[in-house]
Amino acid sequence: MRMYDVILKKRSGGELSREEIRFFVEGYTRGEIPDYQASAFLMAVFFQKMTRRETYELTMAMAQSGEQLDLSGIRGVKVDKHSTGGVGDKTSLALIPMAASCGIPVAKMSGRGLGHTGGTIDKLESFPGFHTSLTRQQFLDQVNRIGVALMGQTADLAPADKKLYALRDVTATVDNLSLIASSIMSKKLAAGADAIVLDVKTGSGAFMKRQEDAEALAREMVQIGTGAGKKTVAVISDMDQPLGYAVGNALEVKEAIDTLQGKGPEDLKELCFTLGSQMLLLGGRAQSKEQARELLKQSIRDGSALKKLAQFVEAQGGDPRAVYDVSLLPKASLTVPVTAERSGYVSHIACDEVGICSLLLGGGRETKESRVDLSVGLVLCKKVGDFVEAGEPLAILHANDGQKAAQAKERFLSACTLSQDAPEKQPFIKGIV
Amino acid sequence: MRMYDVILKKRSGGELSREEIRFFVEGYTRGEIPDYQASAFLMAVFFQKMTRRETYELTMAMAQSGEQLDLSGIRGVKVDKHSTGGVGDKTSLALIPMAASCGIPVAKMSGRGLGHTGGTIDKLESFPGFHTSLTRQQFLDQVNRIGVALMGQTADLAPADKKLYALRDVTATVDNLSLIASSIMSKKLAAGADAIVLDVKTGSGAFMKRQEDAEALAREMVQIGTGAGKKTVAVISDMDQPLGYAVGNALEVKEAIDTLQGKGPEDLKELCFTLGSQMLLLGGRAQSKEQARELLKQSIRDGSALKKLAQFVEAQGGDPRAVYDVSLLPKASLTVPVTAERSGYVSHIACDEVGICSLLLGGGRETKESRVDLSVGLVLCKKVGDFVEAGEPLAILHANDGQKAAQAKERFLSACTLSQDAPEKQPFIKGIV
Repeated sequence: MRMYDVILKKRSGGELSREEIRFFVEGYTRGEIPDYQASAFLMAVFFQKMTRRETYELTMAMAQSGEQLDLSGIRGVKVDKHSTGGVGDKTSLALIPMAASCGIPVAKMSGRGLGHTGGTIDKLESFPGFHTSLTRQQFLDQVNRIGVALMGQTADLAPADKKLYALRDVTATVDNLSLIASSIMSKKLAAGADAIVLDVKTGSGAFMKRQEDAEALAREMVQIGTGAGKKTVAVISDMDQPLGYAVGNALEVKEAIDTLQGKGPEDLKELCFTLGSQMLLLGGRAQSKEQARELLKQSIRDGSALKKLAQFVEAQGGDPRAVYDVSLLPKASLTVPVTAERSGYVSHIACDEVGICSLLLGGGRETKESRVDLSVGLVLCKKVGDFVEAGEPLAILHANDGQKAAQAKERFLSACTLSQDAPEKQPFIKGIV
Repeated sequence: MRMYDVILKKRSGGELSREEIRFFVEGYTRGEIPDYQASAFLMAVFFQKMTRRETYELTMAMAQSGEQLDLSGIRGVKVDKHSTGGVGDKTSLALIPMAASCGIPVAKMSGRGLGHTGGTIDKLESFPGFHTSLTRQQFLDQVNRIGVALMGQTADLAPADKKLYALRDVTATVDNLSLIASSIMSKKLAAGADAIVLDVKTGSGAFMKRQEDAEALAREMVQIGTGAGKKTVAVISDMDQPLGYAVGNALEVKEAIDTLQGKGPEDLKELCFTLGSQMLLLGGRAQSKEQARELLKQSIRDGSALKKLAQFVEAQGGDPRAVYDVSLLPKASLTVPVTAERSGYVSHIACDEVGICSLLLGGGRETKESRVDLSVGLVLCKKVGDFVEAGEPLAILHANDGQKAAQAKERFLSACTLSQDAPEKQPFIKGIV
């Protein structure tokens, strides 16, 4: 087989066989197929698309291109949760302890990633001492002991995806449904869970701006997961404004703790209950959505979810006292209000722009080498649909640098649109696939 | 400017600016833009095409990416001739002396190339001693002195095209009109002639199998040449069967000499007169096609074209006696007739397959390192439309290896289709653009 012929076949609109896809993925991972053939192939895929069958084969080949985690040593049905990412998305921080305290074993691998804020691991490092350097055995043992453990994503998990993603990123071949779906699902499948709950975001702060694209991606991923023998469900949720009020690492941890204390923002609570219900159903811990939701609420009411977070943080070297006393979390030196210049209803918050404010303040990573400042970020005071009086704060910036704060302030102001009429309310959960 | 954005713009169907195209060509030539971005870009061009304006800018950027020959030291209007290539195409060998003896200064750069036979330079090396290692000054002086000189293509002529072609060749991005046209024309423009006559082949032995594709390529190239301020004409000619009867280096030289002696095959003569007339018209040596054709015929009748060939061969170190005594040309040790198994009209000769017979016998290059055997090849005895009796020869193979001859014989037989009815006669010259 020659890569030239595989490129030509895809370029001409042909459907690739399992063998052809494996030839590409394995050859590319081993460095036998050069980048320039891979990128020409990816561009041909962009134009000619892939069938469901091809997408599935691509995912499996990538999932099997490196280490595949064996979670069989953990008792129970392991349910993984994945979000396509957005601004202020601290869902995992609250949902992991909730699900774990309801009896779902959570054995999660997480990345740090580039973005407006750090990844889940960065956020959890807001707990002084928290670390994720567990051996495979410690990881499995901890899940069996307390029901939850978090490990950094190993370099050898789906290395084909890692290499291909880096190439797509510099050759304008990222935004293709099959390539996006296979990239996400290959890592999930290699991470070894029995079932997968996906949170697919849509809106101005999401990768998929349009709901129909988010739905198509959700369907594609559910098909892949199901094809691979894993129960898979996808929830489509709104990311047209930040999730909750807090954006920034320690600030989001605080909001997650609020949520576990029953004081969380409505949208975040709703998302945790919706995703959590699916996790409990797939994990066999509930017979109906209603029962699942009741169990999750109960875990908040009786404090068991909060206690589970403390237990989890402590097990991985973090200071559990910060769960009960958030003043122990990193704190920025400056708080700067951003006030409305006129009165009106908040009709739109440009989500990506709010993310950039967090990045400007130092809360995210621009390059792999960037250091994340866990203390900075912003907390919205108003969300879409709220009325604001002129002079009232729209948000509070948390900063360690006055100049950066001034920049972020200006950026935030232009990200908010005010109108005289109250905007129509949009549903937060858009559907379940 | 970032190459990523250039790829994205083309991928999205945008029209690139002059600056964007130059950024790509110059950056790629200098090695600042990596192969993997270039190949993704080329695949995007394959799908989104290029406008005439973009194709022109691409051509100019490639033409100017290295050395540009200055032929201003040569008196008269320099007219270059280029063929898109085919089987048995020895046109230049006959046409160059004809045009030169009619007063058109021919200052030609030629490549060796990969293919069924060698390139023009290989063919001319059939004259013992012939070489092309001239300095720039010797080259110019020789044209001024005897009206004709041939130089090997320098490595620095349109280096962008050389690098891009090598990449296209391994990434399935060769067959795009803009990329083909710009590749040919960039080299022609860098070679410095004042006017260009193109011979665009169509049929089973041509790169452009379909006449409409050949016409589109011809139009594209004429537009580019004209845009660059060079008078440019393209002739569309048949390559559905080999040109003339001979295929193979020394065998083709012999057929070219026959032609200069007035004994050439009809199709080859017709092509020389058609292309030659255009050269004389563009070069201001004739006022009408009829007059031009008459001048060319005269150059054969009075022996001046044949004498010009001898002068040319001698000027570049070759033995001019071989022009008058072809027994001095390389000669294969075996001649093997391929006889018809049944009677009938020759209705089709698969041109590519005949080329492969020549390659099998050792007459061409499979890789850059291959040595060409100048003596081998084949001479057709019948062409399309001719009647053959069972047992009569269809062709004579000239070989130096009995086993290779046996292979070629079988291949040749299956390349010929016989039918009971005489096939319809097709025009040989399909049009002039």
